[in-house]
Amino acid sequence: MAAGCPLCEGDGGRLVLRAARFRVIHAEEAGFPGFYRLVWGSHVAEFSDLPASDRAHCMEAVAVIEQAMREHLQPAKINLAALGNMVPHLHWHLVARYEWDSHFPAPVWAAARQDSPAERLAEVAGRLPALEDTLRQRLAALT
Amino acid sequence: MAAGCPLCEGDGGRLVLRAARFRVIHAEEAGFPGFYRLVWGSHVAEFSDLPASDRAHCMEAVAVIEQAMREHLQPAKINLAALGNMVPHLHWHLVARYEWDSHFPAPVWAAARQDSPAERLAEVAGRLPALEDTLRQRLAALT
Repeated sequence: MAAGCPLCEGDGGRLVLRAARFRVIHAEEAGFPGFYRLVWGSHVAEFSDLPASDRAHCMEAVAVIEQAMREHLQPAKINLAALGNMVPHLHWHLVARYEWDSHFPAPVWAAARQDSPAERLAEVAGRLPALEDTLRQRLAALT
Repeated sequence: MAAGCPLCEGDGGRLVLRAARFRVIHAEEAGFPGFYRLVWGSHVAEFSDLPASDRAHCMEAVAVIEQAMREHLQPAKINLAALGNMVPHLHWHLVARYEWDSHFPAPVWAAARQDSPAERLAEVAGRLPALEDTLRQRLAALT
């Protein structure tokens, strides 16, 4: 626990599952319904602050989430990132990207290029409950 | 090899080292002297396209690079990302970020917030040869 760290003091978004060493939240970023974060449990800033066994566990969980997102959401591309400039508590962004989304092919942090069609956003959002059931099943098996 | 893929047909930047399964390039992005990419050797789009042993090897290499960047460049934060919307050939961005840099604390893909001081950029650039010697030594040991 680090005082004042929003990822120590709260979940950081809608909780999907809590595992022994991390949790998964839905990021609730407007325009990107398929946006999840793996938040590491302990307060470390950098990926390389973790011991090798935790790094391996963390990235296998990232791969499980990515694979389930691909199966359920069928994105054009998955984007992975661990930035943490504003909140230096290790968390991985996992974003399902589509050719129709507001920023594609630019990163989600760049300027928007177009409006995302509302019906496409709704269609992706509709697939999240089944995806999240899969995440809970597969990540329970991993832990 | 995928026809038309710039990361199959060229190195993608100044080559720092070539290992059995990946290479490391300096990204030459203006304003970010401490910007490297690990480019996976075979043409796969997504991290989860790799078998588990390759994923583990890839991320241990990322951790080695990150650690060496921290030691030599002493950044405020390291940013890691595998995006690939434009070039869907697996590559990891590793960026040394500083509180004085043009975009901090925003991601490097967001809009600039300020000018980076030229003397700070030059200071970081001056540290790259020693960093790259370390990368060649440590990644040779990993392979």
